[in-house]
Order: sequence, then structure tokens, then C-alpha cells
Amino acid sequence: MPDVRDILTRVQSGELTLDEAAVQLQGFEDLGHSRVDHDRASRNGAPEVIFGQGKTPTQMVEIMGSLASRSSNVLATRVQNAAIEPILAAFPDATHYPASRLIALQRNVPAPATTNVAVVCAGTSDLPVAEEARITAEFLGSPTVAVYDAGVAGLHRLLASIDTIRACRVVIVVAGMEGALPSVVGGLVDAPVIAVPTSVGYGASFGGVAALLGMLNSCASGVSVVNIDNGFGAGFLANRINRL
Amino acid sequence: MPDVRDILTRVQSGELTLDEAAVQLQGFEDLGHSRVDHDRASRNGAPEVIFGQGKTPTQMVEIMGSLASRSSNVLATRVQNAAIEPILAAFPDATHYPASRLIALQRNVPAPATTNVAVVCAGTSDLPVAEEARITAEFLGSPTVAVYDAGVAGLHRLLASIDTIRACRVVIVVAGMEGALPSVVGGLVDAPVIAVPTSVGYGASFGGVAALLGMLNSCASGVSVVNIDNGFGAGFLANRINRL
Amino acid sequence: MPDVRDILTRVQSGELTLDEAAVQLQGFEDLGHSRVDHDRASRNGAPEVIFGQGKTPTQMVEIMGSLASRSSNVLATRVQNAAIEPILAAFPDATHYPASRLIALQRNVPAPATTNVAVVCAGTSDLPVAEEARITAEFLGSPTVAVYDAGVAGLHRLLASIDTIRACRVVIVVAGMEGALPSVVGGLVDAPVIAVPTSVGYGASFGGVAALLGMLNSCASGVSVVNIDNGFGAGFLANRINRL
Amino acid sequence: MPDVRDILTRVQSGELTLDEAAVQLQGFEDLGHSRVDHDRASRNGAPEVIFGQGKTPTQMVEIMGSLASRSSNVLATRVQNAAIEPILAAFPDATHYPASRLIALQRNVPAPATTNVAVVCAGTSDLPVAEEARITAEFLGSPTVAVYDAGVAGLHRLLASIDTIRACRVVIVVAGMEGALPSVVGGLVDAPVIAVPTSVGYGASFGGVAALLGMLNSCASGVSVVNIDNGFGAGFLANRINRL
Amino acid sequence: MPDVRDILTRVQSGELTLDEAAVQLQGFEDLGHSRVDHDRASRNGAPEVIFGQGKTPTQMVEIMGSLASRSSNVLATRVQNAAIEPILAAFPDATHYPASRLIALQRNVPAPATTNVAVVCAGTSDLPVAEEARITAEFLGSPTVAVYDAGVAGLHRLLASIDTIRACRVVIVVAGMEGALPSVVGGLVDAPVIAVPTSVGYGASFGGVAALLGMLNSCASGVSVVNIDNGFGAGFLANRINRL
Amino acid sequence: MPDVRDILTRVQSGELTLDEAAVQLQGFEDLGHSRVDHDRASRNGAPEVIFGQGKTPTQMVEIMGSLASRSSNVLATRVQNAAIEPILAAFPDATHYPASRLIALQRNVPAPATTNVAVVCAGTSDLPVAEEARITAEFLGSPTVAVYDAGVAGLHRLLASIDTIRACRVVIVVAGMEGALPSVVGGLVDAPVIAVPTSVGYGASFGGVAALLGMLNSCASGVSVVNIDNGFGAGFLANRINRL
Amino acid sequence: MPDVRDILTRVQSGELTLDEAAVQLQGFEDLGHSRVDHDRASRNGAPEVIFGQGKTPTQMVEIMGSLASRSSNVLATRVQNAAIEPILAAFPDATHYPASRLIALQRNVPAPATTNVAVVCAGTSDLPVAEEARITAEFLGSPTVAVYDAGVAGLHRLLASIDTIRACRVVIVVAGMEGALPSVVGGLVDAPVIAVPTSVGYGASFGGVAALLGMLNSCASGVSVVNIDNGFGAGFLANRINRL
Amino acid sequence: MPDVRDILTRVQSGELTLDEAAVQLQGFEDLGHSRVDHDRASRNGAPEVIFGQGKTPTQMVEIMGSLASRSSNVLATRVQNAAIEPILAAFPDATHYPASRLIALQRNVPAPATTNVAVVCAGTSDLPVAEEARITAEFLGSPTVAVYDAGVAGLHRLLASIDTIRACRVVIVVAGMEGALPSVVGGLVDAPVIAVPTSVGYGASFGGVAALLGMLNSCASGVSVVNIDNGFGAGFLANRINRL
Repeated sequence: MPDVRDILTRVQSGELTLDEAAVQLQGFEDLGHSRVDHDRASRNGAPEVIFGQGKTPTQMVEIMGSLASRSSNVLATRVQNAAIEPILAAFPDATHYPASRLIALQRNVPAPATTNVAVVCAGTSDLPVAEEARITAEFLGSPTVAVYDAGVAGLHRLLASIDTIRACRVVIVVAGMEGALPSVVGGLVDAPVIAVPTSVGYGASFGGVAALLGMLNSCASGVSVVNIDNGFGAGFLANRINRL
Repeated sequence: MPDVRDILTRVQSGELTLDEAAVQLQGFEDLGHSRVDHDRASRNGAPEVIFGQGKTPTQMVEIMGSLASRSSNVLATRVQNAAIEPILAAFPDATHYPASRLIALQRNVPAPATTNVAVVCAGTSDLPVAEEARITAEFLGSPTVAVYDAGVAGLHRLLASIDTIRACRVVIVVAGMEGALPSVVGGLVDAPVIAVPTSVGYGASFGGVAALLGMLNSCASGVSVVNIDNGFGAGFLANRINRL
Repeated sequence: MPDVRDILTRVQSGELTLDEAAVQLQGFEDLGHSRVDHDRASRNGAPEVIFGQGKTPTQMVEIMGSLASRSSNVLATRVQNAAIEPILAAFPDATHYPASRLIALQRNVPAPATTNVAVVCAGTSDLPVAEEARITAEFLGSPTVAVYDAGVAGLHRLLASIDTIRACRVVIVVAGMEGALPSVVGGLVDAPVIAVPTSVGYGASFGGVAALLGMLNSCASGVSVVNIDNGFGAGFLANRINRL
Repeated sequence: MPDVRDILTRVQSGELTLDEAAVQLQGFEDLGHSRVDHDRASRNGAPEVIFGQGKTPTQMVEIMGSLASRSSNVLATRVQNAAIEPILAAFPDATHYPASRLIALQRNVPAPATTNVAVVCAGTSDLPVAEEARITAEFLGSPTVAVYDAGVAGLHRLLASIDTIRACRVVIVVAGMEGALPSVVGGLVDAPVIAVPTSVGYGASFGGVAALLGMLNSCASGVSVVNIDNGFGAGFLANRINRL
Repeated sequence: MPDVRDILTRVQSGELTLDEAAVQLQGFEDLGHSRVDHDRASRNGAPEVIFGQGKTPTQMVEIMGSLASRSSNVLATRVQNAAIEPILAAFPDATHYPASRLIALQRNVPAPATTNVAVVCAGTSDLPVAEEARITAEFLGSPTVAVYDAGVAGLHRLLASIDTIRACRVVIVVAGMEGALPSVVGGLVDAPVIAVPTSVGYGASFGGVAALLGMLNSCASGVSVVNIDNGFGAGFLANRINRL
Repeated sequence: MPDVRDILTRVQSGELTLDEAAVQLQGFEDLGHSRVDHDRASRNGAPEVIFGQGKTPTQMVEIMGSLASRSSNVLATRVQNAAIEPILAAFPDATHYPASRLIALQRNVPAPATTNVAVVCAGTSDLPVAEEARITAEFLGSPTVAVYDAGVAGLHRLLASIDTIRACRVVIVVAGMEGALPSVVGGLVDAPVIAVPTSVGYGASFGGVAALLGMLNSCASGVSVVNIDNGFGAGFLANRINRL
Repeated sequence: MPDVRDILTRVQSGELTLDEAAVQLQGFEDLGHSRVDHDRASRNGAPEVIFGQGKTPTQMVEIMGSLASRSSNVLATRVQNAAIEPILAAFPDATHYPASRLIALQRNVPAPATTNVAVVCAGTSDLPVAEEARITAEFLGSPTVAVYDAGVAGLHRLLASIDTIRACRVVIVVAGMEGALPSVVGGLVDAPVIAVPTSVGYGASFGGVAALLGMLNSCASGVSVVNIDNGFGAGFLANRINRL
Repeated sequence: MPDVRDILTRVQSGELTLDEAAVQLQGFEDLGHSRVDHDRASRNGAPEVIFGQGKTPTQMVEIMGSLASRSSNVLATRVQNAAIEPILAAFPDATHYPASRLIALQRNVPAPATTNVAVVCAGTSDLPVAEEARITAEFLGSPTVAVYDAGVAGLHRLLASIDTIRACRVVIVVAGMEGALPSVVGGLVDAPVIAVPTSVGYGASFGGVAALLGMLNSCASGVSVVNIDNGFGAGFLANRINRL
């Protein structure tokens, strides 16, 4: 959101005309189907990210083009199969991460953060979500450390890497099934823990609900939760905290 | 429903025979599989609309034919793929809207309403539902104004169009995910707001339940809700209110 | 929300100082615990209404006093027992409706609407919610017609009053248990129907969920739904539509 | 279950040896994968019916052969596609009802009941379930009367057939969406009403849950409910009551 | 519902005036808060029953008085504590059943049915609901046989009474917890089984949901279900079937 | 259940009359409200236990008396407040455990098992359920070892006692909130783990559902689950396994 | 988990260097995507089992190779179609069980247990889950006895095999729909009962939830529950108890 | 968790005896009912906090005493009424916050953080939870800024304070009903947003579920969620992030 008071001051001083003020207050490009938010980077520190689900390939290419014209880096999540080739054709320098359904266009490497984000996951089946988190954090400039397949049924696998995890500034913990790993990690570190429930499981896992509830009810302090399978959200938030 | 007291009066006066009275009380055509409601326009102001889900192509064509024989305008919703070609073959002047799964047969353009219906949607992924609402309202004679991709994470996109929205007599707000947009719009306008939750989202959106609950619990007054993805219902109701 | 463009113009012309503009942009009184919204009447056509649940008696009296100082009419909903006496002591001209948990302070009778709102309810047990809707609509200036205990298990009770209902411009239908009444009414009238599920029922009514789902899935067009037991919301919206 | 006291008496009298008694107590044929219940007709008045879901084609043919060897009539429900041809090849005199997924082998027409079962359904989309109920009742010997597409949004369609329905001894009412039809029918007849919720609907119908809850909470007395889409169960029970 | 065709005929013949016809079409007494349905006995074979929940003592006494003035027998269910004394004071010949929360006023003993209704319950804790069913059936004229505390964890307790149960024309089965008893009984009898889930249980019984689901999914044929704790509904339906 | 074949043999040999056989097949005492299962000890290794919820004090005393007359040891669970004094008055040698709502009457100390049952609980708030499990196992003859307040947020508290736990033959793990403890314990021991979710928690713990789902989805093998707060069930099963 | 105290002692005595101690504390092989737990057999009595869902074929082959290099027997569950051929190509002596989606590599036949595990299932449609349990128990060395298609609607089918079941040391009961079988079996045996709900059913079975709730609320003592369709978990636990 | 490698080194060097090492590895005091975690401050940066729900007054006082003996500052949450007086008697310098059910004992004021935490809440009814968050953060040393009653139905109330909020390093957003506020705030700031759903609402708010789902599905990036009404968890995490 533009700084209203600043614009008011500049209107008052005659520095801005009324029309110029209105344009600055708007801050988006209208494609008809989409209003691309060019103001987001100034407003909350990172460019708008494209949510791919439910968008046609043409819409995807147009939105990505609009963003790329202003912000040199663009990230698209949950890119649907039909949109992959059109996007890669339009943006040959974009990178596609199939397992995590991400497409990243990085023309300006951001200055890397000086501290790391740990990405811990409970089982190999949670890898696509964990990678979505890890790639997002890296894309936004946070170096990451991956500790994968460290579920609570074999605690020694986690404890072997606990010093590595403790050396990070933020910890992302990804788990499906009962979602117990964030509670155990949360009891062992003093960094903020971002818990990501995954839809891995069957039966009474209810597509990740069991893991989500487990994480929301964590008996460890310092843990917060994002949506089921929302690796992007965790990576985004981890980078934001890591850069504080 | 026929006017029972009027029919009673006319039976008493001899104007109607008992059989004629019985026929008038019935008011539908029986196709065996379906009882097509020819009385609905007189009863609640708009012709019966065909719900396409679960009906065979043959049933669809027969019902549509029955309605078209009496009412010049027919609307079919959620038309399943197998029924599209048979319907378009039988009614070459019908129009198919693929994204919204509507087929409209409009032989008599209704007198347009003198006020407008606003259709606001939160994200590009909500477009199919928003368009179902918009086309329905237009089909029934209400001019519409579309404000798309105006979600609450970039408020300036909504505020830029708020004067346009305020100029409408009824406002439809379509949103998935957390369904917050109707609350924000409801706080900014003094028109009735019809909220439509969509199934856009993932994880704990539970196919639109999160958006539905958000809208039912709206802290803004003047908001009511229709079923998840029920663009048709919103467009129908908006036109009804717009024509009061 | 104040008219930003108008304020900008007046700032530019020097009609407003920067500070005056900021005050006008604010539009609320800050009581510490509450920010009382004095701008709401201009913004959406009715004064702010006080939601009584979870507020202390002192907070209630202070908020009510702040609103009463600007807007002569004040409505409080879901007033908790402990707050009743303090409010009535502070505002002796206020009226308390115990069954519906409303307190109304009406110092200026609004010009009555020229059309009526019908309030139909399914059973005697739904009366408190129906009355909350009816009193709210009357408070805001819409005359109402009550048709109570007209549930679908005895259709003749409804049909006997159908002409009365059809003469109204908006219809509120209140029902618990299976919530079938709005579908039946919706098939018989051409006015907008606002359905209010109540928590009346037991067992698998789940505190009104059965009625809520029934209403959301209504096979009748022209029906929209508000939250369980939200008589206030229905009355508010009905008046808004009735005054269009 | 065999008559234990009778067998005891016959063992005591020497009429039965211990082994013969054990065989009679068993009352089923063991196919390894299935224990086919040959005793069911004597125990609860109708032969075992085969639930087709989750069974392989070979299992289906073997179970059907085992039942056909003792009971001349066999009914299979929810027959999966892969099993249809093998069954029809093995039992050329069987009849397949595709919409309702039934296969019936009727070698002995039962004496027809002297009273009728009404099968009422709300919409054309509910036909497959209604037909499953109707065919089951007919298979077991109850004549049926079908009143289809008589949903509550067009009450006159139901009222036109109410005398036909009242002439039946049992009434099955099939409905999806809000499931309101059984309440309305239940208020108009004095026969037992068996309500069948269907999974027809979308959004907050949750695959038939809304209709199920509506029916369980029916304000009309004399209504009971079977599982979602369980047309077979309704037809079976209707015949049982009809033959009392 | 009055016989519309008959009234039409009598209007045509001059036997009825228009006003008399309207009165007959109405068939209820309007108490303001309630529309007491005097037509129900003719329409569906039993007088209206008063649902006590959510009604004030005054309303209860008035409705009961209205019904008692026309129908000599009146039954009130779920009578709330505050209403018991006022009702018993107004109707000294009424009987109160505290455990089942029923009040019955029986001035005309109906001709008893010639066959019996079995009421089977799983545990002693289910007694209040079982008794509500049993008293209702007796009130309406069906003799009953009670088999209590016959849960499936001690099958011999059920089998000891199976001949008694089999001698009845209808069987009500009341169970909480896992609700397995109707499936077992349903496999042993050839009478219709009305299953009543109770809210007895704890933890994952969710107030009777586990029992309800168990009964809806019964693998035994011939079983239908009423709402949780709805003993009245089961008794009412059992009598209706028993009198066929 | 009595040994049917044995009784058959004895009937055949004339050792039993038909009446005697019938009596032996029954195996319960009928108190009217309850059928007390005197056969259970022979059938499944432990006397019937009285579920106190929903039973009147008089019923409790009568059932307890019936059981005590045959089986010297009696256990009652979830004893409601009103029943405590009457029971203790009738059975002065009974012991009441208020926190766990148990009353135990132990006149014959069973031969103790030679191996131990571990009862581990996550937090102090889970103590009432853990104690219900522990006292039940002790009552049935299994020595127990308690390791309390060993939740996963402070792993060292668990690891400090892991050797003690490993020395037991069966492990009961009681936890509320996210219910993660059974997964961690299950990964550290080779004994069967019985997980007991408790209703301790708030918000999205939903009365123990979060813990229940966590335990059902445990990534550790060798874990099974009982109902929420069902300490009795866990203690009973643990003793059964411990005595194998 | 390694014996920390033992390692401490050996470090103190100089028997272990610090590095050797660290290696022993780790106990897993890190494949990057997976940390294969080589310590599990010593820790909880059986080798790690591979959960096939969500793993790529390459990951499956690598994990299986890692385990096979240390532990001669490997079991993979829920093997996805794409992984079957690669695994069988890499391990030609592995056995694939298609219905149960298991692949077993058994190079060392374990010493068989001297007692048996009963696997009872309710219907033929439950066979895949029952077989998953049975094969798992056999793989781990427990002989099994199968009693299939013994649902509660035909009790005699169960009673005919009850002696066979009673002769086993542990009983697994597999059932879908209402899940009543474990309660009935639990009332007839004195062995521990492991209940496995299956997703067999339709409508309000909700993918196995009805069966799961039924089992959790079992009125029989000595019953515990594993996740929906978790045949593996039941077989694993049954073997563990059987070998106590 | 103690630094295992460091202890190993010190054991190896003889600096620690085996017993001393064991003590250091334990790190808690065992009160029988509770294992008080004295190691938590070193392990995750803040002393153990006492969860008051379900603990007896005596347990509360003992745990608080154990913690106070080592860590000078102690915080107890959800303190139940019965425990308040005993605690205040035992620790006269403790402070009780009734609305938020906290008791704080602060003997050492921590060095305040140099940046602020914003606590924003939607309505006055959310104050108890917002205050729980604010007091927790202050207790741990983070200065806070409160912006209360800034719900989305009156956006200007939020926008008036947006500069204040943007000046904070972390933002806590507390909201009930539809829980839309975090999405709107998240779109306006570049700080991490911790969303706290409250149980404020009625009907389909389901005790905070609607708000929880709304927050989990937030379309704004940088938002994570804690449990319903978990003000403590939000304040704890906010301080942790604020001190990074």
C-alpha cells in the first residue's frame, strides 16, 4: 500500500497532480482477468508470487510477463502440467522443479542472508513439500540446510543432526502422518519453528488433518503452523524471519 | 403454485370445470423421468433452470425441449461434457460457456434492469464461478460490472474500484481460500452483498469449507451466503434483488 | 470509509489542512478497548451495532455511550446477563427484549419503509431467533409481518398464509432441525428469501449444522443463508433490501 | 440362525447325531474367500444379497453360483464394471440394470404382495438410486408406483400425485441436496416413510451428508433413514414392511 | 392436508361456501406463537405431538390445551424442567415419565394392536431412550416387550431372548457406543428393525455419532435409523408399522 | 459364551436335561434394567466391569451386588458423583479413586503377574487417565511402573527412564494435545504399546481428537489405540497381554 | 537407540574412541533422501519396514538395497505400481502380493512362533487388508489362521469357527461398514483383539470412519485399534504380542 | 537437552564421573506427578511455562516452587480458579491477570528487546486472548504496542494505525469469527505475522474453527498460525523472533 500521508503531503505541496496521486495509489496492472500487484515488493518485502492452481496457461504467461517486466525475479507455485511448456517457451531462462511444481525466474540473485534456514522432514515421502520450502527460501536469498528422513520413530537420526539444526536461525519442520516431529524439534532448539503438515498418510490421516492438528496442539513452545502441504508459505516466512 | 382461492372462485362460479381446475392446479409436464415445471415463471419470477449434474444427455435434451416449448429462454447449469454436443445439435441457437459449464438459450432478450450488479472476485482462479454468476445475471436481464482479482492481500486493487462497486445496487463477492473479501467489501458498501465461496485452495481449505465458514461468520452486516461454487444461485438472487 | 478523492481535492485546494484530512480519514473514537466506528452510517447505511458476547458490562456501557453521543439510535445484540442492568441504568429509555437478547435505544424513529418484510418460522422453538430478526428489521424502519409455527410437516399451516407472505418484498425464513422450510417457501414466492438456520434440534442436528446445510443446498433459487441463530443479520439484510 | 432349541430337542431324542447337529448349526458354504449364508432366507425372510463392491469378478461368479444352487433368486448390488460380463456369461438368464448397478437372477417369481410401495424422488438426477430401490422391491415381490422429479421447490408436482402415494402401504422417498422431501411427504401420508439420501448435489452437500442430516432431523413423524445412496436397503425394507 | 378434490366438489355443488372451504383448508388453530395442527390425525394417523425443547411453560400449557380440546390424547416430549409443574397443574390426569422426559395425557385408551413391538437395548445406560420409545408405542396402542441390557459383548444375553423378539412384528433396537446391536439383531429376525442410536458413550463416540454411523452402515438388511436419542420417533414409527 | 458342543454332548448323554441346558446357555442374571453377565470371566478371562455413566445409584448398587455375589472382585468405572456414597455404604470394603472415578471391590487378590506394565504419561494433566489405567491393571493382577510427565517437548525426561520402560512387557502411553509420545516411545521399545489419547488440551485439540488422530497415524510400528480417555480399556488390555 | 550408558562406560574405559562412540550413537545410513535405520532391529525387535507411498521407484530400490545389505529380510508396504518392476528386477527373489500391495524379500526364514495368530474378517471385500495383516505376521514368523467372511449379519458363520479362533494367542479382526465384528469377537475370546477398520462401504461410511469409530467405542474389553486399512500395523503388532 | 558430545569429552577426560554425567544428562526434578524441566532455558531460551489446565492447586504450587527455586521468573497459563489463591498465598510477589488467566512471577526483569511486537486484535471480545499474548511477550522482555478493535468491517480503524504496526518487528494478529484480519494485515506489512484464532463467535464459528481455517488459508504470505485462543504461544514465539 502506498504511503498515503506522503502522497497527501506531495499533493499539498503541488509536487503531485491529482491524477499522478491516483496512479500511485493504484499500484497494479489490470490484465482483465488479473490485477497484477506491482506494489507488493515495496509493501511487504518480496514480489507477488503466482499461485498456479486454477489458472489457464495463457493467464499464467501473461501474469508472469507482467511481473517480469517490473520485478526481475518471479516465482510460480503449484504450476499445472498444461502450463509448464508455455511458460518455459516464453521464459527460456526459467527453471522448473517438477517434484515441487515450482517455476522460478531469477534474473537478479539477491544478496544472500548471512544465517541459514534448516529444513527438516520426517520421511522420504515428505520430500516434495520440503523441497518446495527449501527452494523458495533459497530463491529469496536464504541459504538452507536440509535434514531429511528424520522422523520420531528413529530419534537417533534426528539427534545425529541436532547440532546442525541448532546452528540455523529458523527451522522449518515438514511432517505427515501424526505430525509429531515439530514438537520434538521444538523442544530441542531455541529458534522459531515453522511446522508444515503434509498430506502424506492414509486412513485417518484425512489428507493431512491429523498432522495439522498435531502441530497446532504442539506441547512445545515456539512453534507455528502453515497450511497443509504449504511448503512455499514456510519457505517465504522463514526467509522473512531469517532476514530480520 | 396456482392461486387456489382464485380457482376456487372460478369453480364456484362455474367458470371452470372440475377437470380444468385440476389441470390448472397441476402446472407441469410429466416426461416420465422429469416433471417439468411450467408454472415456475408465474410462481417465482423466472423460468425453471436445468441442473445438469447426473442427468443423461437424452434427459437434458428432452427437458430443454419441454421448457423451450413454453418459455423462450432456457438456462442449463453444470452441463456435463457428454451432453454438450447433443444439446447444441438440438438447439443451434444456444450458447455454451465452457469455463462456467452453462448453456443458455435466449430467444427473447428481457428488458434490462436499470441498475447494475457488481461481480467482485478475489483471485484469477475464482473466475469460472464469478463468470457463472455474471452470465446468469446478464441472462436474466441485469447489467453487470466485473471487478476481478481484487483479493484482500493487495487491498489497493479493491480500493481502486470501490466507487465502481458502490454505484451498483447489488454486489456479488466470489472468493476461495479464507473467503475474507465479502467482509471487507461488506464494510465498504451499503448494498446487499451475496457471498459465494469457491473450492479454490488446498490443504485445510477442504474444498471451499474454509471460505464458506469465513463468509457465514462475516463480521460485516448485510452479507448472506450461497453454496460453495454456486455462481448460478448468486446471479439468480442478485437479479431478483436488482429488479425489486 | 471517507471519500478519499474528495479529501484529496480539498487538501489540494487548501480547504483542508493536512491534520484535518487525517482526522477525517480516521472516522472512529478510540476507547482503548474499542474503536467505535462513527463513520459506519455514512459508509454502509446503518449505525454500528454492538455485539454483546465477550464484552464486559463496563465496555458495553462505554461503547453504547460513544455511539449514542453521535447516532441517536443504538442496537446491542447477544447482550449478556451481567450487562443488562448497567445498560438499562445508564440508558433508561432503552428497551430490553429478553428472549432475543437485544437492547435497543431508539431516539429517532426512522421513516418507515413502504413495503413489508415477512418473518416466517418453522416452529415455536424458533421464536427467539425469529423475533431477533423481526425486531431488528423494525428497529431499522421496515414494517414486518410474522407467520410463526408454519413448518413443512403441516403444509396447510404455511399455505394458509402464503398470500400474506407473497405480499412482502423480502422474506426471512427461520428454521431448525432439517431446515426445509426455506426451500418450500422459496418455491412459492418471487421475493428474495433470507434463510436463518437455528440451533433448535437434538442429536444429529449438531447445533444447527443440519439446518444450515439444508439451507445452503436448497433446491429453490433465490435463497441465501446467514449464520446459525443469526436473526440480527437476517433482519439487517432484509431491511437493506427492503429499502432499495 | 438355526433354531437351537429345536436342534437340542432332536439331539436329545436321538433324531440327530452330534455331527448332523453341528452341520445344521453351521448353515453356510465356505468358498475360502467367502462364507455363503444359505440359512438367511429361513432366518430373515429373504436370500443373502451380494454386495459387489471390492469383490473380484471370479469371487462374484463363485458366490452367485453358490447362492443360485440353493436359492433360485439372486440379487447382486453395486456390481463393478469388470464383473458384469463374467456374470452375464455364467448366468445368461440374469438381468443387468446399468444405471443402478444391479444384476438380478430371478428363476422363481415370488407371489406378489397385494399392496404397493411408492417410490418418490426429488429430482431426475436421483433416478439411479430410486430405481435401485424400485427394482429391489419388485424383485422381492412388491408392486411399486413411481413418482419421480417431485422436489419441494415445485410443490404442485408432488401434490398432483399425493392421492397415488397415499394409496400405497409404504413410501420410499429419495432425495439429494437438502433432503427436504421426506419431511413434506411425511406430513401428508400415514404410511411409514423410508428416506434415502443421495449424493446428488455439490459444494456443501458433502456427498449426501446434507441430505442425510436433513432426513435424520425430519420434523415429520414416521420417517426413518437408510445410508446415503442405499436404494437397495430401502427397497428391501419396504418389501419387508409391505408383506407384514 | 384436507382432501382438496373433495372440497372442490363440495364447493362446486354449493354444499360449501367459499369461507367454509377456506376454513377447512386451514385445519389449524393459531395461538400467535404456535399454529396447532388439528388436522394431523386425519392426515397421518396420529395427533400432533408437542416437542418441548425451547418452548416456555406458558406456551406448553397453551398448546397442550389447544390439542386436548380436540384430540383427547396428547403427548409431549423433551419436556423441560420448568414446564413440568405448570403442565401437571393444568392437566392433573396427565402422567409424567421423568427419565424419558415425556408427559402423556391419555383420556381415550386406543384399541390395542394385536401384535407386539419389541424394544431391545444394549446397555442399562440406554434405558431412558428405550423407555421413551416403549412408552410412546404403548401410548399409541401397541403392546411392547422389553429386552434390556443385551449388548453384543455378551451375546448369550441376546440369544436367550431371541425367540421373544422374533415373536414381535416390529423391533426397535436402542444402542450407544459402537451401535452394533441392530446389525446383530437384524441378522436374526425377519421383522423390520428400527435402530435408535443413543448419546451414551465417551471420547470418540461424539455424542452418539459413532452409534449413528454404525447403524447407517449396518451390513444387515431391513434396518433403518432415526435420529440420535430419538426414542419417540422410533416408538411412533413402530406403532405405525405394527398397525399396518 | 458357554461351550455349546460340550452342552450338546451332555444333553445327548442324558447328563443334562433340556431345562438345565437352557439355563447353562443363558449365563446371566436378569435384574430387569440389567442382564448381569456372570459368564464373562469364563468367557474372556475377567469379570464384567460396570460402566457407571448413565446409571442410577440404585442400578449401580444392584448390579454391583449381583456381580459381587458370584465374582469376589468387582470394578466400576466412571462412577457418577451421586452413586459414590450409596455404593460405599453398601460395600464398605470397596475403595474409591476420586481422580479416576473408579470404585474397586477386591476380596480376592489375584496371583500377581511376573512381569510389569509400564504406564507412561505426557503431562501432569493426563494423570487421572493414566491412574485409571494403572489401577485397572493392578486390580487385575499386573504390577505397574509409572513414568509420569515425560512429554516430548523435554525428551531427556523420557530418555532418563527409558531403561525402566524397556524392562516392562507391555507399555501404556497416555497423552493429550498432539499425542506424539506413543510414536517416540514406540520407536524406542520392542514391547507392544497401547496408546491412550486424553481430552487434555484446548482449541483445535477438539476434546482429544487431535491426540487420537496422532496416535492412529503413528509412524512407529507396534502401536495400537483405545478410545479417548479410556484408561480402563488400556489397563484391561495391558493386563491381558501381560498375562499371555 | 544405542545403549547410552554402555557406550559411556566404554568411552570412560578407553574401549571406545570419541569418534567410534559417535558412529555407534548414529545407527543409520544417510542416502540423502532417506536415513535408513539400521539400528531398528536391535531397538524394537524387527527391521525397518518401507512405506511405499510417495516414494519414487529409484528411492524404493535404494532404500531396499540399503536395508537388504544389513538385514536379510525386507518388507515394503503400499508399493506403488511404478515401483513394482524396478524392485522385482533388482531383487529377483522378492515376492509381490498385488492385492495387498506388499513386496517381501525373505532370505532368512525366522524361527516360527509356537502359537498362532487368528485373522478374522467380516466380508470378502475386506480381503486385501486382511491378507496384508496375515502376510505381515507370517513374514515375521507367526503362523496364522484365516477365518474370512464372518460378518455379524450371519452370526452362525462366526460361531462355527469360534473354537478355532479361541485356540489362537492373538486375534486380528478386520471389518468395514459398521465395524461391529471386533465387539462380538471381543466378547467371545480372552485373547487380545486388534481391530482393523477398512474403507469398505459407501455413503456414510466415510472411507472407513464409521468402522473406526465403531471399533474405538467397542463395548467389549480387550480391543485396541489401528489405522484404517492398516493391515500391516495389525500384523506387525500381532506378531510382537504373539512372541512375548 | 544437554550437550552430549561435551559430556562425553568430559567423561573421557575424567573431568566427570559416570554418575555426574548421568545427573547432567537428566536435567529435571522429579516431583512424582511432574518432571520439572530445569534444562529448558539453556535448551530453548526460555524457562518452562506451566500449563494450568487439569492440574490440582497443590500440583501447581509444587511445580511453581520447583521452577522458582532455579529460574527466578515463572509464568503459569490457564490457571484454574481453585489454584489462584493457593498460588498467590505461596508467592505473594506473583501477579495475577484474571481476564487472561495468567500468573506471572517476575523476580528478574529481563533486558528489554530493542524492537517492538505489535498486538492487533479484531474486536473487543478478543481482548482476553490478545492480552494473554501481550503480557507473555512483555514478561519475556519484548516491548509491545496494542492496536485493539481494528476488524476488517471498518478498515479505516486499521489503516489509521498501520504506520504504528509497520514500525514493529513482529506482528501478532488476534481475531475470531471469520479470522480475516491476518490476511489484510499480512498484505500491508513486511514483518512476520503470527495469527491467533479465537473462539469468539457463534453458530458456524464452531468455537474458533472458522477463524482457524481462515488463517491457515490466508492468501497473504508471511503468515503462520497457532492454536485457537493460544495467546501465550503467540506471545512466546513473537518474543523469540523479536530477539533474533
